[in-house]
Amino acid sequence: MYRIIQGIGPKRSLQFVKKAARSLTTFRDHFPKNDDFSNRHIGPTEEEAYQMIKYLGLKDIDELTNRTIPDNIKLTRPLNLEEQLDEPELISRLMKIAENNKVWRSYMGMGYYNTHVPNTILRNMFENPGWTTQYTPYQPEISQGRLEGLINYQTLVCDMTKMEIGNASLLDESTAAAEAVALCHRQTKRNKFIIDSKCHPQTIAVCLTRSLPLGIDIDIVDRDKMIFDKKVAGFLLQYPDTEGTVHDMQNLVEEAHKHQCLAVCATDLLALTALKPPGEYDFDIALGSTQRFGVPLGYGGPHAAFFAVKDKFKRLMPGRMVGVSRDSNGKDCYRLALQTREQHIRRNKATSNICTAQALLANMSAMYAVYHGPKGLKHIGTRVHKATCVLAAGLRKTGHVIENEHFFDTLHIRPVYTPSEIMIKANQKKINLRYFENGNIGVSLDETIEDEDVRDLLWIFGCEIPLEDLIKEEENLTEKLKHSRTSSFLEHEVFNKYQSETEIVRYMKILENKDLSLVHSMIPLGSCTMKLNSTTEMMPSSWPALSSIHPFAPIEQAQGYLQLFLDFEKDLCEITGYDKISFQPNSGAQGEYAGLRTIKAYLDDNDQKHRVVCLIPESAHGTNPASAKMAGMDVIDIKVNKQGGVDMLDLKNKAEEWSDKLAALMITYPSTNGVFDKEIREICDLIHHLGGQVYLDGANMNAQVGLCRPGDYGSDVSHLNLHKTFCIPHGGGGPGMGPIGVKAHLAPYLPTHPIVRPAGARHQSFGTVSAAPYGSSAILPISYAYIKLMGPKGLKRATQMAIINANYMAKRLSKHYKILFTNNEGFCAHEFIIDCRNFKTSTKIVATDIAKRLQDYGFHAPTMSWPVSDCLMIEPTESESKSELDRYCDALISIRKEIDMIAEGKLDLHDNPLKRSPHTIQDVTASEWNRAYSREMAAFPAEFVNPTSKFWPPVGRIDDIYGDSHFQCRCPPVTTYKSAYLD
Amino acid sequence: MYRIIQGIGPKRSLQFVKKAARSLTTFRDHFPKNDDFSNRHIGPTEEEAYQMIKYLGLKDIDELTNRTIPDNIKLTRPLNLEEQLDEPELISRLMKIAENNKVWRSYMGMGYYNTHVPNTILRNMFENPGWTTQYTPYQPEISQGRLEGLINYQTLVCDMTKMEIGNASLLDESTAAAEAVALCHRQTKRNKFIIDSKCHPQTIAVCLTRSLPLGIDIDIVDRDKMIFDKKVAGFLLQYPDTEGTVHDMQNLVEEAHKHQCLAVCATDLLALTALKPPGEYDFDIALGSTQRFGVPLGYGGPHAAFFAVKDKFKRLMPGRMVGVSRDSNGKDCYRLALQTREQHIRRNKATSNICTAQALLANMSAMYAVYHGPKGLKHIGTRVHKATCVLAAGLRKTGHVIENEHFFDTLHIRPVYTPSEIMIKANQKKINLRYFENGNIGVSLDETIEDEDVRDLLWIFGCEIPLEDLIKEEENLTEKLKHSRTSSFLEHEVFNKYQSETEIVRYMKILENKDLSLVHSMIPLGSCTMKLNSTTEMMPSSWPALSSIHPFAPIEQAQGYLQLFLDFEKDLCEITGYDKISFQPNSGAQGEYAGLRTIKAYLDDNDQKHRVVCLIPESAHGTNPASAKMAGMDVIDIKVNKQGGVDMLDLKNKAEEWSDKLAALMITYPSTNGVFDKEIREICDLIHHLGGQVYLDGANMNAQVGLCRPGDYGSDVSHLNLHKTFCIPHGGGGPGMGPIGVKAHLAPYLPTHPIVRPAGARHQSFGTVSAAPYGSSAILPISYAYIKLMGPKGLKRATQMAIINANYMAKRLSKHYKILFTNNEGFCAHEFIIDCRNFKTSTKIVATDIAKRLQDYGFHAPTMSWPVSDCLMIEPTESESKSELDRYCDALISIRKEIDMIAEGKLDLHDNPLKRSPHTIQDVTASEWNRAYSREMAAFPAEFVNPTSKFWPPVGRIDDIYGDSHFQCRCPPVTTYKSAYLD
Ligand SMILES: Cc1ncc(COP(=O)(O)O)c(C=O)c1O
Ligand SMILES: Cc1ncc(COP(=O)(O)O)c(C=O)c1O
Ligand SMILES: O=C([O-])O
Repeated sequence: MYRIIQGIGPKRSLQFVKKAARSLTTFRDHFPKNDDFSNRHIGPTEEEAYQMIKYLGLKDIDELTNRTIPDNIKLTRPLNLEEQLDEPELISRLMKIAENNKVWRSYMGMGYYNTHVPNTILRNMFENPGWTTQYTPYQPEISQGRLEGLINYQTLVCDMTKMEIGNASLLDESTAAAEAVALCHRQTKRNKFIIDSKCHPQTIAVCLTRSLPLGIDIDIVDRDKMIFDKKVAGFLLQYPDTEGTVHDMQNLVEEAHKHQCLAVCATDLLALTALKPPGEYDFDIALGSTQRFGVPLGYGGPHAAFFAVKDKFKRLMPGRMVGVSRDSNGKDCYRLALQTREQHIRRNKATSNICTAQALLANMSAMYAVYHGPKGLKHIGTRVHKATCVLAAGLRKTGHVIENEHFFDTLHIRPVYTPSEIMIKANQKKINLRYFENGNIGVSLDETIEDEDVRDLLWIFGCEIPLEDLIKEEENLTEKLKHSRTSSFLEHEVFNKYQSETEIVRYMKILENKDLSLVHSMIPLGSCTMKLNSTTEMMPSSWPALSSIHPFAPIEQAQGYLQLFLDFEKDLCEITGYDKISFQPNSGAQGEYAGLRTIKAYLDDNDQKHRVVCLIPESAHGTNPASAKMAGMDVIDIKVNKQGGVDMLDLKNKAEEWSDKLAALMITYPSTNGVFDKEIREICDLIHHLGGQVYLDGANMNAQVGLCRPGDYGSDVSHLNLHKTFCIPHGGGGPGMGPIGVKAHLAPYLPTHPIVRPAGARHQSFGTVSAAPYGSSAILPISYAYIKLMGPKGLKRATQMAIINANYMAKRLSKHYKILFTNNEGFCAHEFIIDCRNFKTSTKIVATDIAKRLQDYGFHAPTMSWPVSDCLMIEPTESESKSELDRYCDALISIRKEIDMIAEGKLDLHDNPLKRSPHTIQDVTASEWNRAYSREMAAFPAEFVNPTSKFWPPVGRIDDIYGDSHFQCRCPPVTTYKSAYLD
Repeated sequence: MYRIIQGIGPKRSLQFVKKAARSLTTFRDHFPKNDDFSNRHIGPTEEEAYQMIKYLGLKDIDELTNRTIPDNIKLTRPLNLEEQLDEPELISRLMKIAENNKVWRSYMGMGYYNTHVPNTILRNMFENPGWTTQYTPYQPEISQGRLEGLINYQTLVCDMTKMEIGNASLLDESTAAAEAVALCHRQTKRNKFIIDSKCHPQTIAVCLTRSLPLGIDIDIVDRDKMIFDKKVAGFLLQYPDTEGTVHDMQNLVEEAHKHQCLAVCATDLLALTALKPPGEYDFDIALGSTQRFGVPLGYGGPHAAFFAVKDKFKRLMPGRMVGVSRDSNGKDCYRLALQTREQHIRRNKATSNICTAQALLANMSAMYAVYHGPKGLKHIGTRVHKATCVLAAGLRKTGHVIENEHFFDTLHIRPVYTPSEIMIKANQKKINLRYFENGNIGVSLDETIEDEDVRDLLWIFGCEIPLEDLIKEEENLTEKLKHSRTSSFLEHEVFNKYQSETEIVRYMKILENKDLSLVHSMIPLGSCTMKLNSTTEMMPSSWPALSSIHPFAPIEQAQGYLQLFLDFEKDLCEITGYDKISFQPNSGAQGEYAGLRTIKAYLDDNDQKHRVVCLIPESAHGTNPASAKMAGMDVIDIKVNKQGGVDMLDLKNKAEEWSDKLAALMITYPSTNGVFDKEIREICDLIHHLGGQVYLDGANMNAQVGLCRPGDYGSDVSHLNLHKTFCIPHGGGGPGMGPIGVKAHLAPYLPTHPIVRPAGARHQSFGTVSAAPYGSSAILPISYAYIKLMGPKGLKRATQMAIINANYMAKRLSKHYKILFTNNEGFCAHEFIIDCRNFKTSTKIVATDIAKRLQDYGFHAPTMSWPVSDCLMIEPTESESKSELDRYCDALISIRKEIDMIAEGKLDLHDNPLKRSPHTIQDVTASEWNRAYSREMAAFPAEFVNPTSKFWPPVGRIDDIYGDSHFQCRCPPVTTYKSAYLD
């Protein structure tokens, strides 16, 4: 029956799986099919590639690679991967794998619940490249859609929790809890932290892991045993707790506050539709997951976690916050508030290493709230609670003891029968329950509950009373809810006007159309690898056999996933030269952290506990030092040389100076400056020689796949940003995945998990970094698909083309801009930096002006002021065609000429199209036009800027300073349409 | 395993199917779920509905219905339909149904082939409301995207066939052939037509059916027996023929032309990548299906048929043609050429009754050609041909006779074994072949063919030679292709530049964003019922269990479909009061035709052959008289009275005058003028009394569902535009579905099919109207879903709300515009007409100016100049919220004030924003602005026209006259980006 799943002909069967080693005489080989996916993925045609090679003065594609990549690291054989599959074959392969999963009904709770994803949100957001392919909204003028979505999210979180300020998502509930622990520690400067023993076990595990290197002592105690004093930074409660109990928190919070300890509540937004919210208990921090707000289980993710605090802690908030500001015309608009890229500024003093978060999922959850509105959510909450009451009544009458008298949706049951009797019956119904070690059983209901489900549960527990009778008896059930909520929520108009599908579709479309995404034009963000995210790669993530599995379901039900993980791991090992992969980290930064902790665990285990120094080049991404710090290391900066590589002398000096304490070098390769250092092998040898380990930041793997392998030339561990090189779309700021690859000696120390031990995890593991054992499993098929569709040849050609595209652009631009770094041969890797610092004195133009001006040309800016301030870093990727590259170059050249015009006095120093960019439709259509340049120059500065298809920035340049000084991060008032003419 | 298909939780099982009659004591009933789909479907909230009812001076919603619908036709009981399902239940229901289909590999050919739908086209077009929810592009300024797609389609067709002019699609290959027969007859005024006996059987059947009433004698003869003379209008060949033979057509065409007979070729575009095209044989007409260009089988549809002619026949072309014209700024743009709405002008003299066609599918096929380009298509064609050669070689060596020496992809096999021996083996492999009556077997290959498939076919035919050996022997196979193509095709740039996925996604997005669709704002087209097409309704159509079934597959493989047809038929009968439904007609007009033929067959069978007169009110949709004419009836016009209803006196006079010959009355109800005539029952009685039958055009069923039933008040037959009342999206001009409902006495005469006899079809059937037995089966689940999701209460409320919305708008507008027709109580039905005729003398303003000016407000015009010329007919539907209605009213009121300003001299008579509308971005951003009104007035004429979300017309007002006099209906040249700065 799997055939009915996807849009393929009827005949794709598993035959392909076995075809890896094909005989060379088949029809297939003689008359291959038309479709080689790599030709779809790679932008330039052969003809275009040839033109660019010629332009670069090269003989062929290999010459460029030879002259770009150091000889001593080159991979001299083809990757040993399965030959490419075509798209129908890939879909067929993944369907077969998906069929090996079993979708049972799961009532296990623990922070993961079944949910009905509204189909219109699924299709119009999650499955829509107009919502999935944006980058993080660092260019807010062309990101107003998802910023509005995220401010809805923040409003949702604040309203439900009654906290003052919320952020725009974290990676999962458990890491959010760990961030809270760190915040309390940082704020109070105290080293003890108390965690309620009834928190979700994965949350406790992550907090323990993360606290250790920070020197925080965690006490896991029962709620009624908590004792506060001057050493305690704070405490964390789960509400309702992991067993489902709804408990009074008033006294604890008061008690804690008496000792200036902070109070943290991990909670559940659906429960808060019915229960008194943490803000009303005076909690300092509230956090949790919004998964059950319309995001599928996905065997662990991706989902958004929320984090909300009292106003006074806003500057300690981890992650991004969207705030309201105003644009150049004084109009309200949205942008990231306060801590944009704070790691780059604060580095190892950053509040957190979080970078990629869960923007897309936060947007989905916010839209789910818009879709249901307060009345709908309240209704859903009440219904789930009532169903739970009915179930409880039935169980009690059958003699079971409900241990938690007060509950919302979860029962903690001491059964009259043995757990195995119950389990046999549950299995018969294909139902997963939570089985506690003491023989108790947990059942958590959710919005998908139906009569039949309640009946099945009653049957499992041997209750023979008809559902109908139980219902009749329990008619006034709500009265019983203790600590019930009295305050209203979501009164803001946005949650009250889009409840018809027509309205919400239009709302989603309006937001979508405000954002520049890959469906419009290239987004050449250096270090971000914004490439094609193909439909075929994306489709499996929404198949229920992948998306509807609880992360803690028995492993027999996830055999498809396991098969995928193992095969994918094999491929990633071959690509990187590593021996083992952990899929647990949910982002690049989490990968860094996990990798460093793995190194540290290895060193500790080998009597090298004293090794705590981490060398990091100054050019490193800010998450590197932040992660090192969180992993308990001391960061020593290494200078960068004129070619953009590591300053070898400084490295040697520092390495030797710190050799006793040397734990690791963290290095990005090719460097964040876009160059393949010649000395990488030498560097790795040096570190090893001195007893350290090498962490190679894999953000730039797109320049290496098929050409060289970190594991070969000396690195010990890397994270792979699957949301860069391996085609997971950025989602407007997440999801992402940062699995790490390690050499064999590090493998025993990789992450484990307290509930489901990941395949291969050992007791030496340093701990747990994510709530789910395999991180965001549901998006792994995207990267898996990419590798299988490209095959070894396609992957290598993609890398080569990424390098050609970058060098082509660099060469074209070099006549107009200074290119900062190239290797000895004059070539860059897959990205390059253009220097914008020299315009400032004569013309006052800075990189930001160029970036904003690019919006007028319909383009997204390159990476701004990183790794070199006031410069722009361009990474075109292999997916962009030559004509798109040419358009982008032409835009930059045209801007360069505009700068010249300022210098020559032909344009005014202040009133010029760069300083006043971007230009909105409103600007250029207003009757009044008193600028010193023309409307045409403002809006259609190049021939290719087609008025009928131009992407327009919906707002003018945004005033960051105003926003930060008039801080506001909840929905500003909007007005429903009131007819102008109605009598 | 069905669970993995769709985005629902794991627990939706078939339980729901059995729940129709639920006990009233379940949890479900006590605590219903939050989601009642009807609240999602219906735009106004209860509060808004209440406000509107108040505004209308009414007590409640029932009062309006009571005062709108005549007492003597009111349905006084609730519809006897299953209670509503919620969305997950519906999906679950349809999955269960779909599972009863069996997807076998089908090599049956006959015009239907497996194809790989490129996933990116599937997702970004077929599954994207931005492509599916537009209306027919009658407002070309805001339809440039799909018009460009359709001109690509026309170019594709012309290039492949080498004909001069192609249209923008017909309903299917068989009706296209019937149109060709009619064209030949009309052009030559001759009454004989010759059809090759080797045409597809369904094509022959449809041509026979359609020719009969036109008085055309069809001769079905073998190709070598054709004799031409002065009586012969033309001949039709299939190329390659239905058995797969590629034959020389030169002599036949020459011979025919000697006698001024026209030559018509039914052909296959994929074959034409390899074979000499019909245009090079000097054919006058070429036609066929573009299904295999990336449109799923869909158990028969929807697919696009093409139709192409020599230039000299362009004015006889049936269907729509897209042409190039210029806009008010002299810019190239697209619009419907020549025969826009020709039925409304020519009525029973129209060339054809075709109205809704297959725009969306034509766009998909054109995009498939863009995706593959000429090289890709050539490659696919060659590969399919080579696979066929290899198969042929294997079969010959096994002793089978290949009857057709020259073939492209289809073998006609005289097997050495008995057909049943072969069938047993084929069934074992789940493969469908074509079994001829004489024991021969047909096998047609297609682009999805793989080694394994060829091996299975060889095995079925008992060939034991390894595939590898056959391939080796057949290395120079192409040499053997006879009549091979020498001319190139698709050299136009559009087919050569979007072959990377990134490029084609951007291209599709650019086109999408040029079109105003329901995702932007309301499209209140009178008589078109542009309502919500919900995601849930739409999803099943792309499930392979529904989309991958050959229409002629054995009925055992389509049990799911049958179940759906039967259940759906039951529901439609209950809704309409009819006794039997035929799903065969693919559009409303096809339904009219089928219904009238059914009536005629009934009359003929009851010795009433002389009854040939069809009475039709003057206000009828143009397809009515056109269909009547095609059905062999004589049309007599009936006058319309001042209330917009039938002039009873005139009706009585005419009916009596023609009583002897009276066959039928065709009437639309509520009338096309938007009013429920009081006399409808009386009218029906009168017609019956005189021996005639009543055809009630069902286009306005949206005003009746749940309130009254045509079958109850006297109608004998109606078509139902499923693409109006029942939520199939219009697709920008198709697909549609026009099933007909009939009273029992007519049932025996309903359509049948020569290959798969539809359930219930009888030998008395009048014939066949579509290529597939059940028309466009794959979109029926949309309407089925709508009925199930709404349930009886929801459906009734939707109708009531449609009437409220219309009356609310009418009342608001009545202070500013004259409302043409209402009933005695002053109420309209679900639509109303505003009179624009009175502005002309004083201000020169006509309806077109208002329509175009609405685009500046971000809106689509209402139906223009139909049914009353120079008026606008507004149908808001139930799906629009009150605030959207208010915006639309405000726009019209604001325009009305602009008209006043012209009258008062405050705006210039010529240089005013109405006459010069719509305004493009280019207009209002140009430095030069020398109009007599402001830019703001031009572009942002009302407060609600938000500059950040306004939909802009991409071109200015289009010059139709220029377009028709500079006729051009293939892609105009475009220019690839040539860098402005490249050295
Ligand atoms: C070089 C480098 N390292 C690490 C990261 C962090 O990855 P993530 O955003 O997935 O946490 C980035 C992100 O852009 C990066 O560019
Ligand atoms: C009243 C009426 N009848 C018939 C039709 C023809 O239906 P179709 O376009 O599906 O052929 C229409 C189309 O709009 C219509 O409005
Ligand atoms: O398309 C119509 O003619 O209504």
